[in-house]
Amino acid sequence: MRIPVALPHAYRLLNHGPTTLVTTAHGGRANVMAAAWVMPLDFDPPKFAAVVAADTWTRELLLASGECVLHAPTTAQVDLTYAVGSRSGRDGDKFAALAIATEPASLVQAPLVRGCAAWLECRRLPEPALEAAHDLFVLECVAAWADDALWSGGGWRFPADGPRTIHHEKGGRFFATGDPVAARR
Amino acid sequence: MRIPVALPHAYRLLNHGPTTLVTTAHGGRANVMAAAWVMPLDFDPPKFAAVVAADTWTRELLLASGECVLHAPTTAQVDLTYAVGSRSGRDGDKFAALAIATEPASLVQAPLVRGCAAWLECRRLPEPALEAAHDLFVLECVAAWADDALWSGGGWRFPADGPRTIHHEKGGRFFATGDPVAARR
Repeated sequence: MRIPVALPHAYRLLNHGPTTLVTTAHGGRANVMAAAWVMPLDFDPPKFAAVVAADTWTRELLLASGECVLHAPTTAQVDLTYAVGSRSGRDGDKFAALAIATEPASLVQAPLVRGCAAWLECRRLPEPALEAAHDLFVLECVAAWADDALWSGGGWRFPADGPRTIHHEKGGRFFATGDPVAARR
Repeated sequence: MRIPVALPHAYRLLNHGPTTLVTTAHGGRANVMAAAWVMPLDFDPPKFAAVVAADTWTRELLLASGECVLHAPTTAQVDLTYAVGSRSGRDGDKFAALAIATEPASLVQAPLVRGCAAWLECRRLPEPALEAAHDLFVLECVAAWADDALWSGGGWRFPADGPRTIHHEKGGRFFATGDPVAARR
């Protein structure tokens, strides 16, 4: 079940460096892409940095709408994640072509992809020089959600045999998030 | 054994989102801190984005020297990683206090922490506005290294029972990098 996450805890949804999906929507059209280069940038209000390449349809929709949703997909979604990262929405609607189920977000127009571990509804904080020089976008998270089968008490609690968040290495090869390791305090 | 990694492959050392260590040195003083908010920014030449908070000794040494080394520490180093992230080098030399073994880097003054999975020698590409607004630094990787027990053929090959790279969630709780998952091509 998708449950809300307190905004000061939102950074924890991506703090461990998972690969993300990014959805956007504007003027009745929507898109989804994969992005490995996304990380937290600040705690409260939560901000994130995301690389969105210059020629992408996602970038056009992000600039036009000022909004996106970052998602943490799971091991059950590696094929979906790789597929949406290997084609452009300019060439056809990826949601329809790949039968990707979505539901509405709470504060932004971009949709939520079902079945993910986390969802972060974001608004672009315009940084034109940074975007032009490094394809880097600064996003403020305005609403955050997690799957309560994987998240509780303000942190990830992955069941041993359940889905995990994923980390892309290269060419469709991912690593699952592994077992917890606690440092000596 | 520490082996060189071709610069166009350097992004793969951090593409899966591990927590990092950052070393710096200037004027005979050196420091090491932990940083979870580090990610690739470009492929070739390889660039990385790293958040280095405003009041840190690392930031002072990075600005003075223009150099740092990013490291991917392992599950064998979670105590070290948490410890260097929980104190300031202003209060005393962390290498001595924590008995952290180092060796010289090839192109920068900052030292290499022994026992890591990867090392990325970096030079700061000055972005004063970005640094001031978001504590975000753009770094160009000028030399990259990996442990050949964990890396081969341009990718990670973690043995089942050996050390893994790590991902910080919060408060000294990390996740090991888990098993590989291949997407359908």
